[in-house]
Amino acid sequence: MEVPIADVMAVHQMYGRQSHSIDSGHAADWAATFTADGEFHSPSYPAACGTAELVAFAERFHAGSAAGEVLRHVVSTVDVAAGEGPDALNALAYLQIIGTPPGAASRLHRITTLDDELVRTPAGWRIRRRTVLRDA
Amino acid sequence: MEVPIADVMAVHQMYGRQSHSIDSGHAADWAATFTADGEFHSPSYPAACGTAELVAFAERFHAGSAAGEVLRHVVSTVDVAAGEGPDALNALAYLQIIGTPPGAASRLHRITTLDDELVRTPAGWRIRRRTVLRDA
Amino acid sequence: MEVPIADVMAVHQMYGRQSHSIDSGHAADWAATFTADGEFHSPSYPAACGTAELVAFAERFHAGSAAGEVLRHVVSTVDVAAGEGPDALNALAYLQIIGTPPGAASRLHRITTLDDELVRTPAGWRIRRRTVLRDA
Repeated sequence: MEVPIADVMAVHQMYGRQSHSIDSGHAADWAATFTADGEFHSPSYPAACGTAELVAFAERFHAGSAAGEVLRHVVSTVDVAAGEGPDALNALAYLQIIGTPPGAASRLHRITTLDDELVRTPAGWRIRRRTVLRDA
Repeated sequence: MEVPIADVMAVHQMYGRQSHSIDSGHAADWAATFTADGEFHSPSYPAACGTAELVAFAERFHAGSAAGEVLRHVVSTVDVAAGEGPDALNALAYLQIIGTPPGAASRLHRITTLDDELVRTPAGWRIRRRTVLRDA
Repeated sequence: MEVPIADVMAVHQMYGRQSHSIDSGHAADWAATFTADGEFHSPSYPAACGTAELVAFAERFHAGSAAGEVLRHVVSTVDVAAGEGPDALNALAYLQIIGTPPGAASRLHRITTLDDELVRTPAGWRIRRRTVLRDA
């Protein structure tokens, strides 16, 4: 089943906004790309579930990045697929974490796959559950 | 001539689906992003022409990746241009091949340019001919 | 305020066209993604303002790339936001500069953030002012 263009575009916009939010320290904006009960599961961090934990996670991420090596969430290769019913989507994307220590060369830290379950809300598409798969 | 939005979006979706298909071992899905007589030309591999050779190529790629260093096709910087007539498109994109050996750091293997000729089919846009240009 | 799909898509297309233009030596096409009085500000180069300076900048970039290490503008993580009024947009994107010296491995030179002010023109969306933010 083909996903409507408007929905695919909205997911691309969400990914862009999400990365720039966390990387520039807008923790609440990052958390707002998830539902209020949204879940973030990654092998690199403890799980974060619900808005309060998601905001705290994004704040810690940016504080670490601002204090030392600048880290960027570089997202590409987005694939948006239909979920169960018109109000659900599944999306895959690649995420490169690229870091730049003060005065040193930028380098690729890791490559992960974002595996997201999205739901339609009055405020647009939100992530219900993110599973980060890490190559290693 | 401007390419209709629906067609541009379909090509973005094709690129996303294509990468995740080959990287997760779904060789038939990868081959299905080409026409039945589709051609894949790359300086890194022998040419693959037609569905059977394309499937075999994708199977070999994933078997190698699963057995050792995990490889990812990271696609970005997509530019979709009109082809000859409403049922043809030309697309350019950058492809980073990123590898992660077991227990070692991820690294960029190579950067290539995908130069694709696409045709409209009843099943959507398909690649008639891919030429991979490799920086070296 | 949500940005219309057609406008978001046009910005994605502009980024794709822009990168492939400068990387393949089409300096005038690259400059044409800016307004006639468009400005390019980057910590890596002197400022370029107006079409003539933008063309000259792109020509120098490609001449250097063709003579030695091949450089690619890899753009992703696009976020298009409303500007002031329906004829203005602000866009953010990540830009990886990836270089490949003759006979050597490809490597990431730097990661930057593109911060663009765009205006609607009869010829489509054009960059009025680009500010490149460089991690380092």
